[in-house]
Amino acid sequence: MRNILIIGAGRSASSLIKYLLEKSESENLHLTIGDLSLELAQKKTQNHKNATALALDIFNETQRKAEIQKADIVISMLPAHLHIEVAKDCITYKKHMVTASYISDAMQSLDAAAKENGLIFMNEIGLDPGIDHLSAMKVLDEIRGKGGKVILFESFCGGLVAPESDNNLWNYKFTWAPRNVVLAGQGGAAKFIQEGKYKYIPYNKLFRRTEFLEVEGYGRFEGYANRDSLKYRSVYGLDDALTVFRGTIRRVGYSKAWDMFVQLGMTDDSYVIDDSENMSYREFVNLFLPYHPTDSVEIKLRHQLKIDQDDVMWDKLLELDLFNPNKIIGLKNATPAQILEKILTDSWTLQPNDKDMIVMYHKFGYELNGERKQIDATMVCLGDDQTYTAMAKTVGLPVAMATLQILNGNIKTPGVQLPLNKEVYLPILKELEEYGVVFHEKEVDYKGYK
Amino acid sequence: MRNILIIGAGRSASSLIKYLLEKSESENLHLTIGDLSLELAQKKTQNHKNATALALDIFNETQRKAEIQKADIVISMLPAHLHIEVAKDCITYKKHMVTASYISDAMQSLDAAAKENGLIFMNEIGLDPGIDHLSAMKVLDEIRGKGGKVILFESFCGGLVAPESDNNLWNYKFTWAPRNVVLAGQGGAAKFIQEGKYKYIPYNKLFRRTEFLEVEGYGRFEGYANRDSLKYRSVYGLDDALTVFRGTIRRVGYSKAWDMFVQLGMTDDSYVIDDSENMSYREFVNLFLPYHPTDSVEIKLRHQLKIDQDDVMWDKLLELDLFNPNKIIGLKNATPAQILEKILTDSWTLQPNDKDMIVMYHKFGYELNGERKQIDATMVCLGDDQTYTAMAKTVGLPVAMATLQILNGNIKTPGVQLPLNKEVYLPILKELEEYGVVFHEKEVDYKGYK
Repeated sequence: MRNILIIGAGRSASSLIKYLLEKSESENLHLTIGDLSLELAQKKTQNHKNATALALDIFNETQRKAEIQKADIVISMLPAHLHIEVAKDCITYKKHMVTASYISDAMQSLDAAAKENGLIFMNEIGLDPGIDHLSAMKVLDEIRGKGGKVILFESFCGGLVAPESDNNLWNYKFTWAPRNVVLAGQGGAAKFIQEGKYKYIPYNKLFRRTEFLEVEGYGRFEGYANRDSLKYRSVYGLDDALTVFRGTIRRVGYSKAWDMFVQLGMTDDSYVIDDSENMSYREFVNLFLPYHPTDSVEIKLRHQLKIDQDDVMWDKLLELDLFNPNKIIGLKNATPAQILEKILTDSWTLQPNDKDMIVMYHKFGYELNGERKQIDATMVCLGDDQTYTAMAKTVGLPVAMATLQILNGNIKTPGVQLPLNKEVYLPILKELEEYGVVFHEKEVDYKGYK
Repeated sequence: MRNILIIGAGRSASSLIKYLLEKSESENLHLTIGDLSLELAQKKTQNHKNATALALDIFNETQRKAEIQKADIVISMLPAHLHIEVAKDCITYKKHMVTASYISDAMQSLDAAAKENGLIFMNEIGLDPGIDHLSAMKVLDEIRGKGGKVILFESFCGGLVAPESDNNLWNYKFTWAPRNVVLAGQGGAAKFIQEGKYKYIPYNKLFRRTEFLEVEGYGRFEGYANRDSLKYRSVYGLDDALTVFRGTIRRVGYSKAWDMFVQLGMTDDSYVIDDSENMSYREFVNLFLPYHPTDSVEIKLRHQLKIDQDDVMWDKLLELDLFNPNKIIGLKNATPAQILEKILTDSWTLQPNDKDMIVMYHKFGYELNGERKQIDATMVCLGDDQTYTAMAKTVGLPVAMATLQILNGNIKTPGVQLPLNKEVYLPILKELEEYGVVFHEKEVDYKGYK
């Protein structure tokens, strides 16, 4: 039996654990699933004979080290900042490690030690980061393989509600951490490169400079720019590309409506509202509008945002029950962003039968034999239910598959890494197709300018 | 002879030193003027027999302590964060101290020690903070003295160009640190209280929610909200006031035009522009606009900001030579804010014969015998020349006057303090009038709502 220690049994671990349990007989696997909550861990093991649930406190050094020592490989599904102690133990006890998180500086600093010990520390192998790397590198390598020169790369990803459950005016529900949705794009201008020129979009314009994306069978989406589109420019080999852009996918109209909150100041997380606890939704809105003794909160907001009588923007606000004088916020010392999150959660929480959807869209522009060409690659994944969501599948399955590939010696390169090599992306992308995560590639007219 | 040690002989020290030198015979004063630059200190002493210039390095502990020991009182005109070592020495050697800076936590922590030793540490006695405290407390005390209850307090201050030198479309030139002008309002929402309700204005709306102010003989101004209007709410005794607002004064139209920079993202100081050094002004503007192969930077900017053909906003931009492809920024690794400051400095630097102007405007709303009343108090001070500017006079004279009042035993209350007491504001406001700093108070109709 090969022992896999999985630390963290939260929402993103469901498909990951299911996959490994299904393979446990044929692949001779035993899973130890550790979580601060024994109940959560037990729920995930489902009394499977090849799995053990464990109440695991990673701050209990003795226990942590003991469990890691017993494993052949460790999967950490902890929040990103908690990986490092686990990673250090993996060096000490010479265990491979897999995470779905961005490589932190602390993690990167273990690279030499991992290499010395022949250990594979695979990171960023969830969805985004993860499947975006796998699917992008596959097409980039193919283009380069036939002698093409990549001149444009745009990559979009979004977690959305599935069409069958898409029943509000925003065409959006929270399928992952709501806080990240409320804070999206904050903390500096969005930076990218377009036709050889650096471009910056300030936060207050971010949601007004979107790009449309058409996905066959699913209709139209829009994308707004991520904070740093250039993070992977060098590792993807795109230093000479004229356009490098990464963005977030929403349904058309979401961004324009979201911008209302940005313009009002409701997404600000930098200060606390006085007496937020006892404030009504209506009073919260009024905080951001000029005082008037008789004018209503509604007319002041309409005027401030220049919303016409027949504009659907208005209906989107009404749908959120934003002007309700009787709904009380009930959060102590909350920031505007925290209050907005609370208000949106009332309307945007997935209902028991709702399903989610992941959409990914890549554009690859290239030159080949003097011609400009373009390949668009799209992937849509639908959730099965509220446990095996599209998010859980796309985050967890690549982690699980990479773990097995490492155990089976198919992934061989040691060191702290993200999945950019053929030995990683080829088998995993192929296997993902069996689970409904399929990329459709097609040649389209080149959309760049030059 | 009473020895006054003045540390820091920069621009804001000119009127301060002139005042004390003029009084040095009658008041038996000797000034020691220390600055890192001996030349600067010498320029300020003007070979006056009652003054000594000194090359003083405040990080040279021995020298600093020796000079402080010789003084009867110390004036620190250093940048605010450098006061604290001087202040500690003043405790050690039992010397009074005067600054024009906000009271830092470090300074406040010396309060008990100052009181124990009977020392007066007078701070915030420049212009803003300074004259605003003096002039506001005088009227507030008068209203309360006759049994009135203050329900509204608004206070505005601005450093502007004098009408005779006001010859650009922005009606603005830099009369003080340009960097502070570029960064004004950043770092959180502006907060104030209006008719009993907290109000917040996000940065991206700050310059679009201005208030007009009319000053007799000087025409119309506008005010935009300061970051924290409530800082002095309690110490001014305004906890029960319905409206408390502090703002910055500009000429009408400035804020609307400045908002263009905010909307474009040019005031951002949080990231560095790649290759800013070799970039032209025109390329800088283009960073914030979508790419297009043929559309001009001009039309893209007009479209983005919705500027009509005949809108003076456009002329304001042209006046700054913002679209010049040949003017090179020449600053390495500069932020957008630093680059904007550079561009504005080309146009907004005071010329040798230009004069500056300080405008202060207070509104005091109160209830007396069941009636709502209002007093408006305004002050305009014009600079004499580029040495004795309005800014240097209004910052330096109250510092100098307070120093003399302390030496002469008229200001008696020990401790770390700001000038809120009658024993401070009465004699200083009176004496300031001799120097052209005069407040005009008049009864007007009450402007609040309730």
